[in-house]
Amino acid sequence: MIKRFEHGGNIYQPAPDGGPWLDFSANINPLGLPESIRQALAAHLDAVVHYPDPAGTALRQALEGAYGVPGGTILLGNGAAELFYLYMHTFRPQRVLLPVPSFSEYERAARAVGAVIGYEYLKEDDDFAFPWEGLRRACGQVDCIVIGNPNNPTGTLATADEVLALAEVGARKGTDILVDESFLDFLPSDEAYSVLDQAGDRDNLFVIRSLTKFYALPGLRLGFGVTSPLRRGLMEGHKDGWNVNVLAQYAGVAGLRDRAYQQASRQLVQKEKDWLYEQMTALPGLHVYRPCVNFIFWRLTGEGKRTADLADALRADGILIRDCTNYPGLTAAYGRNAVRPRFENERFVEKMREKLSKF
Amino acid sequence: MIKRFEHGGNIYQPAPDGGPWLDFSANINPLGLPESIRQALAAHLDAVVHYPDPAGTALRQALEGAYGVPGGTILLGNGAAELFYLYMHTFRPQRVLLPVPSFSEYERAARAVGAVIGYEYLKEDDDFAFPWEGLRRACGQVDCIVIGNPNNPTGTLATADEVLALAEVGARKGTDILVDESFLDFLPSDEAYSVLDQAGDRDNLFVIRSLTKFYALPGLRLGFGVTSPLRRGLMEGHKDGWNVNVLAQYAGVAGLRDRAYQQASRQLVQKEKDWLYEQMTALPGLHVYRPCVNFIFWRLTGEGKRTADLADALRADGILIRDCTNYPGLTAAYGRNAVRPRFENERFVEKMREKLSKF
Repeated sequence: MIKRFEHGGNIYQPAPDGGPWLDFSANINPLGLPESIRQALAAHLDAVVHYPDPAGTALRQALEGAYGVPGGTILLGNGAAELFYLYMHTFRPQRVLLPVPSFSEYERAARAVGAVIGYEYLKEDDDFAFPWEGLRRACGQVDCIVIGNPNNPTGTLATADEVLALAEVGARKGTDILVDESFLDFLPSDEAYSVLDQAGDRDNLFVIRSLTKFYALPGLRLGFGVTSPLRRGLMEGHKDGWNVNVLAQYAGVAGLRDRAYQQASRQLVQKEKDWLYEQMTALPGLHVYRPCVNFIFWRLTGEGKRTADLADALRADGILIRDCTNYPGLTAAYGRNAVRPRFENERFVEKMREKLSKF
Repeated sequence: MIKRFEHGGNIYQPAPDGGPWLDFSANINPLGLPESIRQALAAHLDAVVHYPDPAGTALRQALEGAYGVPGGTILLGNGAAELFYLYMHTFRPQRVLLPVPSFSEYERAARAVGAVIGYEYLKEDDDFAFPWEGLRRACGQVDCIVIGNPNNPTGTLATADEVLALAEVGARKGTDILVDESFLDFLPSDEAYSVLDQAGDRDNLFVIRSLTKFYALPGLRLGFGVTSPLRRGLMEGHKDGWNVNVLAQYAGVAGLRDRAYQQASRQLVQKEKDWLYEQMTALPGLHVYRPCVNFIFWRLTGEGKRTADLADALRADGILIRDCTNYPGLTAAYGRNAVRPRFENERFVEKMREKLSKF
């Protein structure tokens, strides 16, 4: 089983030089917390003396407006992660198929309810493309398939057509498709990739979004899911009504309204990911996969090289990356890093070059 | 089944006169948010850009210090309510016995996992004392018994000896005892009543505490539970590691350190509950049960009188109370109100007198 909390570095340990960590292990919007949200939080501190609105009316309306999905199909989550567990606890799938490598919480949540886990591998030879053929074939034999789109850590992107085709087969054969679209907001347009607008009509499709990563508030926790009203109602019955704190609700409303920040974020991420990709492909001993959003996946090409050693060396200089050794389907040579602001990216590239040259 | 979200008034609807509600339906510390927590929140707004510390180290240490329980036995919750669901999802008791009337989330959480619910009644003839005899007899026949101490809404207090005696029988017969001590912090001393210090050694005892009510931050969500390290570990496996947001963690640390606020809160609540009890016993058509903490339970004595009608009349004047009609074991004549600051309590008594005289 995957070891717990190895999602990246732990910024709650002191950095070697006593200064702040350069955290390339967490995939958070490099623009940081929007001023609009900061102001909303500061203005509403005293709202914590009241219970959160269990209906989440204002936030639900803001989500309806921003994503064009009916409020009755929206389930609010204390972060996207809570919703994986909520799905599993509500529907208790016995057999869960994971295209791997993928975000470790999918497996951990499925194991919590005693599911038997199957893997279908995204293969290096295939540039880590989704194994659609195998996934479609598995429908009817498994209760649930979990797709990360884009997939973390490989960055593989699925089109809406591909996901819907799988959901169609799943609907006929009794297999749920859980789609984690937590990073899709970082695309210039997610229209060709998102199936959010399809989920409200489908009992077997549950699409999860995070506001945590795009609005840079992982510490506040905010996510939502969309599925049929029937399925949503069943999941509401498996949690209390106050799971999304009031400050997260205010933050969500403010962020969803902040078009300037949204646009600036997409522009920055698209530009910086390309810059960083260019720089990293020039580094010795590194094969870099082309990123689509705010994280970059790579492999050490030198024989017997281990990302764990590279991560240790970088950590000594105050830089945290994600060693991908503990993902199923990956060897010890894989790693992932976030796309950060330019000055941090420059330092990251410089330090990577330094370590890789001596490696 | 209990109707959802009827825990009291909904302050997210506008009040009749457009002003703020006088909310006597939610049992929150009348002193309001401590300045120490307000400052901690304001100082740490930018901390939301990082994931919460999954180990909750600082908060865990503060809880260890404040309650004298080992950190390894503490489970941190996104409010106390999350922990009821987490217990149910982890252990999936098939038969749950509830001494009722009690907080409706116990039943809702148990029903989420398909448990058969049994009731053992706290009886009016018996001044709503706990039916210990019946509860002990039920051990071995049920998987779990949930005790609210003090019990909400009746205000019934159990001694630590009484709870431990039940837990002993439960341990021999394979019955878990879940104790909700969410209001015990309001007592001048909880020593004779709390079993928190016993829970870390016992697999069948899970004690839940809320910081939400005492520190007046229900909107931020913060609670914790204590049980054996084995049981705690199993429950950790059923949730993600970031369920307690960073601001709640900072708030908890600040509040647990604020001895002046703690003392002032206990003094105020003890004094005001007595004052309000005195005033309310003098009202016509009302039988008032003696309160021990920050809420007061009562019954309309006039034949055919309904609390729902009284609640409607008060709502028209901007005052919210808790109509207790939908609690199992209670008739339509029961109600509950919070203990608020004196000027609010005065207005409450005045309006109650006005409505009850015409009733």
